[in-house]
Amino acid sequence: MSKEDKASNEELWAGLGVDIAVHDQLIRGLAVLERRLHRKQNNRPLKMDYFNEVLSDLHGHRIAEIVEHKNQGGKLVGSYCVFIPEDLVLAAGAIHVGLCAGSDFPVQDAEKVLPRNTCPLIKSSFGYKLIKACPYTEASDLLVGETTCDGKKKMFEVLADYHPTYVIEVPQKKNTRNQGVFAAELTDFKVQLEQTTGNQISQESLQEATAKVENKFKALQRLFSLRQADPAPISGLDVLTITQIGFQDDVERFALRVNELCDELDDRVRDGIGVAPKGAPRVLISGSPMSLPNWRLHTMLEKAGAVVVCEESCIGTRLFSYLSEPEGDSLEEQLKAIARRHMSINCACFTPNHGRVEDVIRLAKEYKADGVIHYTLQFCHTFNNEGVKMEKALAEAGIPLLRVEADYSSDDSGQLKTRIEAFLELLGDIRGAY
Amino acid sequence: MSKEDKASNEELWAGLGVDIAVHDQLIRGLAVLERRLHRKQNNRPLKMDYFNEVLSDLHGHRIAEIVEHKNQGGKLVGSYCVFIPEDLVLAAGAIHVGLCAGSDFPVQDAEKVLPRNTCPLIKSSFGYKLIKACPYTEASDLLVGETTCDGKKKMFEVLADYHPTYVIEVPQKKNTRNQGVFAAELTDFKVQLEQTTGNQISQESLQEATAKVENKFKALQRLFSLRQADPAPISGLDVLTITQIGFQDDVERFALRVNELCDELDDRVRDGIGVAPKGAPRVLISGSPMSLPNWRLHTMLEKAGAVVVCEESCIGTRLFSYLSEPEGDSLEEQLKAIARRHMSINCACFTPNHGRVEDVIRLAKEYKADGVIHYTLQFCHTFNNEGVKMEKALAEAGIPLLRVEADYSSDDSGQLKTRIEAFLELLGDIRGAY
Repeated sequence: MSKEDKASNEELWAGLGVDIAVHDQLIRGLAVLERRLHRKQNNRPLKMDYFNEVLSDLHGHRIAEIVEHKNQGGKLVGSYCVFIPEDLVLAAGAIHVGLCAGSDFPVQDAEKVLPRNTCPLIKSSFGYKLIKACPYTEASDLLVGETTCDGKKKMFEVLADYHPTYVIEVPQKKNTRNQGVFAAELTDFKVQLEQTTGNQISQESLQEATAKVENKFKALQRLFSLRQADPAPISGLDVLTITQIGFQDDVERFALRVNELCDELDDRVRDGIGVAPKGAPRVLISGSPMSLPNWRLHTMLEKAGAVVVCEESCIGTRLFSYLSEPEGDSLEEQLKAIARRHMSINCACFTPNHGRVEDVIRLAKEYKADGVIHYTLQFCHTFNNEGVKMEKALAEAGIPLLRVEADYSSDDSGQLKTRIEAFLELLGDIRGAY
Repeated sequence: MSKEDKASNEELWAGLGVDIAVHDQLIRGLAVLERRLHRKQNNRPLKMDYFNEVLSDLHGHRIAEIVEHKNQGGKLVGSYCVFIPEDLVLAAGAIHVGLCAGSDFPVQDAEKVLPRNTCPLIKSSFGYKLIKACPYTEASDLLVGETTCDGKKKMFEVLADYHPTYVIEVPQKKNTRNQGVFAAELTDFKVQLEQTTGNQISQESLQEATAKVENKFKALQRLFSLRQADPAPISGLDVLTITQIGFQDDVERFALRVNELCDELDDRVRDGIGVAPKGAPRVLISGSPMSLPNWRLHTMLEKAGAVVVCEESCIGTRLFSYLSEPEGDSLEEQLKAIARRHMSINCACFTPNHGRVEDVIRLAKEYKADGVIHYTLQFCHTFNNEGVKMEKALAEAGIPLLRVEADYSSDDSGQLKTRIEAFLELLGDIRGAY
């Protein structure tokens, strides 16, 4: 980055209230990671160039676009969960971003306020606000939380003392009554968005926004399904990073770039070109979300010779697998359809949540996974407990499983590496036995 | 206990499927605790005799009553939370009990299945079922769970593999819409109870049951308010134990015995007789529930010369502070009133939950507490996070606060004792300064 670009970025960040010195440390850390992890991969698709650029300028170009939008009276709405419907936000003329939540960087500061026995994603989300290190958070006119887990639900109450925060209730059982309850919550959220932006949400603006958002979902569906090929045409690390970028990038540009990448991957699949040799152990990762830059598990697996072929995660299939299908021609029906779309997500916040175990078994077959890693963020009660059911169900289905619980630090890297190597060896033995 | 009584009890327990050898260890442990803690107290009210008897025969006489009820075709419904309306269960002709959840005894076994990073109350509840050590659990025709926290919500899914389990959804925001949602959940629960018992719930049977249950609540309200006197006429340990017993005892007999005790306490208050000298440091405990035999904090405080004057807890004021007030004369209105009664509880499961902080400040004044201990079970996200708000609000109100996070083991007893002594010294210094 040129000196001029850096100075202009710093002006942007300072204007948003970002702590420049702290942010500078964060950004330098991210750049080191990207050089060590992403750039060290071999045989990457050429069309990763766009995403590499975004990654190396994560808080630059996109933040400039957002500030430009805000300067023209537009608003920014930030959230932390796939249960916040991006299309509702767009329909109110605002920009929506998923907020920083994946770095260990702000965790120590967060622990000065929040209980230490809280999952790292929650501590990171809150910590970013506390130390003013995330320009997306600082630029947000409204932070939107939800009640998908106790830790987040209660953290948002504390966060509200630091930044305007609105919370959407997600029901806990998956029945028809609760689809109505969630539709009512989204109707309240619509009113809040109209207040925040000063714009009315119309049937047309919502229709247009839903089309854009679901076009992004379809692009991600296409990207993921290309990974079913053996050899996989793209690494798990790259797809995870793309999915993460999708939470902050412009929705239309992102879909376009993903589709361009998919065109290249189509050719690769046709020509049998992969990122790892045909026959490399194929792993599906299922569980707690991995926010940017939580790339540790993917990197460890792929450095050890495996390829990650699918993420059953909010930063994965749970994000994009469902589309809205209004049953009538009115704004109310559209809101109901969006509520149904989100209530279809097999998140561990629901009870019971049989669908998720079924999804993992189905996806493991579709993606020809040799094994599954059940990933839980430390202190994440919902996914950790679902691991019990997952273990039982996968054993019955004959799919090898490794359960991993981790925070954002690298204290356990040695032990984790050993467990992963043993798991991959097991997968190799099983494959050899056929 | 005579040899004959012991043999007859063992026959009862074995008939329920209890593991006699394991249960014997548990019961012997409880008896040791009761001798060491309850019996070592001085100057106790005479009318504690009934509760002492119950305590020393915890799984005897009451279980015999329940087995007799079951032998005559009656049913037993067990639950783990104040959001399960006991009156609905009674109206269906069943007995309701709160289930064993307060002992460290089954925790190690529970950890073989559940994640270790789960609160001890949840591990204990599940562990009792796993090792078949709780006759109340074994005798239950239906276990009723709820969604008040992630750990329980997901544990109940696992528990359902071991015992018939039904889950009631408790909404997460405290608005009028959610009162309706909870009333609908209770209507579903009514249908389930009618299936389980084969009895219909009528307006009359529910009215009668509500009167009985709320008579118990009023007896506990009376008992608690007597503790506002200085000197306190009864120890915190005794009141906590009584409240715990109230979850398993016959509802009418319990109310009668509590009122008899209150008559004696009336005299004590009039005569200035207390369990600790007038002027002893008075402590209010607020936070996660303390199930029987979780007596550690009370014992430590009272052995150190303090007196616990109130529990803002599910085993305390949150249980009994609200009464149902139907707005019309129908079963539907009664169910709505019961839903409103429970949605009035200021549980940390709600967001936001400003009422609880307000309650603690009000109760601290009413009970003339010199300080508050905010008690959180380890890994309990909801109460632990609310501790952040509580700390801020009590500091503003000038009420000294000590935050304690603990599991059921006694590993931290030395450290906890030191912190408690320092806190009591602080309370003494503050009092001395006036």
